[in-house]
Amino acid sequence: MLERYGHGGDLRTAEETFGFPARQFIDFSSNMNPYGPPDGVRRVLVHYAEQIDRYPDPAVRGLRSKLARLHRVDEQSIMIGNGAAELIDLVVRALKPPVTALAYPCFTEYGDAVMKSGGKIEPIMLSSDNSFELTESMAEQSKAKFYMIGSPNNPTGQLVDPALIMKLVYNGATVVVDEAFMDFIPEEEKLTLIREAANHERLFVIRSMTKFYAIPGIRLGYMVGAPQQIAAMRRLQVPWSVNSLAQQIGEAVLEEKDYALRTMNWLQEEKPWLIQKLEGLGLRVIPGNVNYLLVQLPGVPGLTAATLQYEMGRMGLLIRDASHFIGLDESYCRFAVKLRHQNEWLLEALGRCLSKFREAGRA
Amino acid sequence: MLERYGHGGDLRTAEETFGFPARQFIDFSSNMNPYGPPDGVRRVLVHYAEQIDRYPDPAVRGLRSKLARLHRVDEQSIMIGNGAAELIDLVVRALKPPVTALAYPCFTEYGDAVMKSGGKIEPIMLSSDNSFELTESMAEQSKAKFYMIGSPNNPTGQLVDPALIMKLVYNGATVVVDEAFMDFIPEEEKLTLIREAANHERLFVIRSMTKFYAIPGIRLGYMVGAPQQIAAMRRLQVPWSVNSLAQQIGEAVLEEKDYALRTMNWLQEEKPWLIQKLEGLGLRVIPGNVNYLLVQLPGVPGLTAATLQYEMGRMGLLIRDASHFIGLDESYCRFAVKLRHQNEWLLEALGRCLSKFREAGRA
Repeated sequence: MLERYGHGGDLRTAEETFGFPARQFIDFSSNMNPYGPPDGVRRVLVHYAEQIDRYPDPAVRGLRSKLARLHRVDEQSIMIGNGAAELIDLVVRALKPPVTALAYPCFTEYGDAVMKSGGKIEPIMLSSDNSFELTESMAEQSKAKFYMIGSPNNPTGQLVDPALIMKLVYNGATVVVDEAFMDFIPEEEKLTLIREAANHERLFVIRSMTKFYAIPGIRLGYMVGAPQQIAAMRRLQVPWSVNSLAQQIGEAVLEEKDYALRTMNWLQEEKPWLIQKLEGLGLRVIPGNVNYLLVQLPGVPGLTAATLQYEMGRMGLLIRDASHFIGLDESYCRFAVKLRHQNEWLLEALGRCLSKFREAGRA
Repeated sequence: MLERYGHGGDLRTAEETFGFPARQFIDFSSNMNPYGPPDGVRRVLVHYAEQIDRYPDPAVRGLRSKLARLHRVDEQSIMIGNGAAELIDLVVRALKPPVTALAYPCFTEYGDAVMKSGGKIEPIMLSSDNSFELTESMAEQSKAKFYMIGSPNNPTGQLVDPALIMKLVYNGATVVVDEAFMDFIPEEEKLTLIREAANHERLFVIRSMTKFYAIPGIRLGYMVGAPQQIAAMRRLQVPWSVNSLAQQIGEAVLEEKDYALRTMNWLQEEKPWLIQKLEGLGLRVIPGNVNYLLVQLPGVPGLTAATLQYEMGRMGLLIRDASHFIGLDESYCRFAVKLRHQNEWLLEALGRCLSKFREAGRA
């Protein structure tokens, strides 16, 4: 049970469970850019020892100004967070929605934030038959006035039509869109709701910088909303919440245009290849849009996400047991898409595990 | 007005105000160990690029275990925070005291955390005549059932008698003791309430690791309390709130015994010397116990904390205008104690400023 302390990428628990040092695992359970952090990160680290003895800029002025230019919104529309997780927590604490609609399966933190703030959840159950797509009729069935929506959604990889979200807003709801993985999508510019959020007081967009730039260790996310709303949330935020290294790295990675291009090219090539191979092994792959894949295991006696996770872990590969997501059963796993040689290891190990379960089933 | 965005150490605002690059200021406004971060910090940074692409351990197991051994308390009594500021915010949010007693002047974040949580403040006004000491009769006058107490207190440097605090607890109050500067005190072992906090469900101790080890940029603090109380607060904490670099640095600096000894020796020698010199310039020094000094300026026309801050800033020295603390008037400043050559610059610049104001007063 690798999700004991967190949600994927908990290498320390994996070490304790499987007895390998963390560095020896290939981690398909957390959805990081497999190229690792871009060169600019190393350059910032070299000089950071000279700067660690000063407080971070509490207003995060440098990074906010760069993001404002990138997205062509006002700086006052942007706040930076100690990871997207802090912003998910803050937006719920600030707005205190009595009822929040969540479309399951979705990122566990949405529901945790709602529960912590004492709110209720109105679940919208996405359907496996429909590849977990959120449709307009499903969204509008909800009587909640507050939605938290992942787009692309985690763990399904599904985008939500921006027109659907805007319709909810125009109909009077408040919507928080978690676009943590939006930067992996080539049509990002067309699909993001950042500019709409900067101009609408009932729409918020949360972004993570840690997936695309492979820097989850340092925590960095941002939120875009109407300036007055953002100001209210900044008043709730813990002072100096965003450490100075994260601020500097955030500014540096935005200059990494080649890295971004290489990442886009890799994913466009690698994902269809991996999907085809996984299907070849008899897995059902939910057709997602990002750097991870939700898959359904074939019906083989004894084969579940948990037993597969354990067998793969013994071989040094970590995968995500997706049955911990509300709305998914024990037949679902999530794999990050990684580089070709790593994906080949995944396929090799998967093949061996599947054979083992199939043979045991026949015995 | 350097406190626009934060409370001391806001070098970016200083840059904008005075037109110097941040590196050229000597910063007496934030109370960091003037030796700068110990060598272990640099060693951690060298290897951090290889680890930034993994999530932090959400349970912060390594650092908690080391701190537990250091303080001889159970690991379950310790939680790590994204700076002490996060823990101040969390403890108030978790316990939701309707009324909180604060002994002014004190660290501004206590009051901010209370206001954010919708609570009321019952002020205890410390007296300048009494060197801002918190006495038993003053503390017991309060009808509040919840106290936040700095010991040593910021900005006064005054310790609060541990017996006084325990009496409040035994009389039924809940007390949060902010010991952010306790590690600068040679009698720390005798004065800290950490072990009492681990065993009493109405006592909490908050510690910062960023002042003694000069690492405020990365944010790191911890709180000690009864295991059940700590567990409740961890449930409220944002996931992965403590970045992995802070976790690693926290573990590394605890091994720096020589650095700790050198710091203790420096402060014991330097502080009495600086006090004597400041008094020689006609300043009243509040007799504090730590690495900063609260001083009262002499009555000279036009000389206030704000005008002095501005004049010193123009010479490249940042000091804290302490009039922003509730309970202090415009005659109070706070200076960090730094290394001898830096303190000499402070005295030299102070001397020049005082002469200037005195001459202008006579003109």
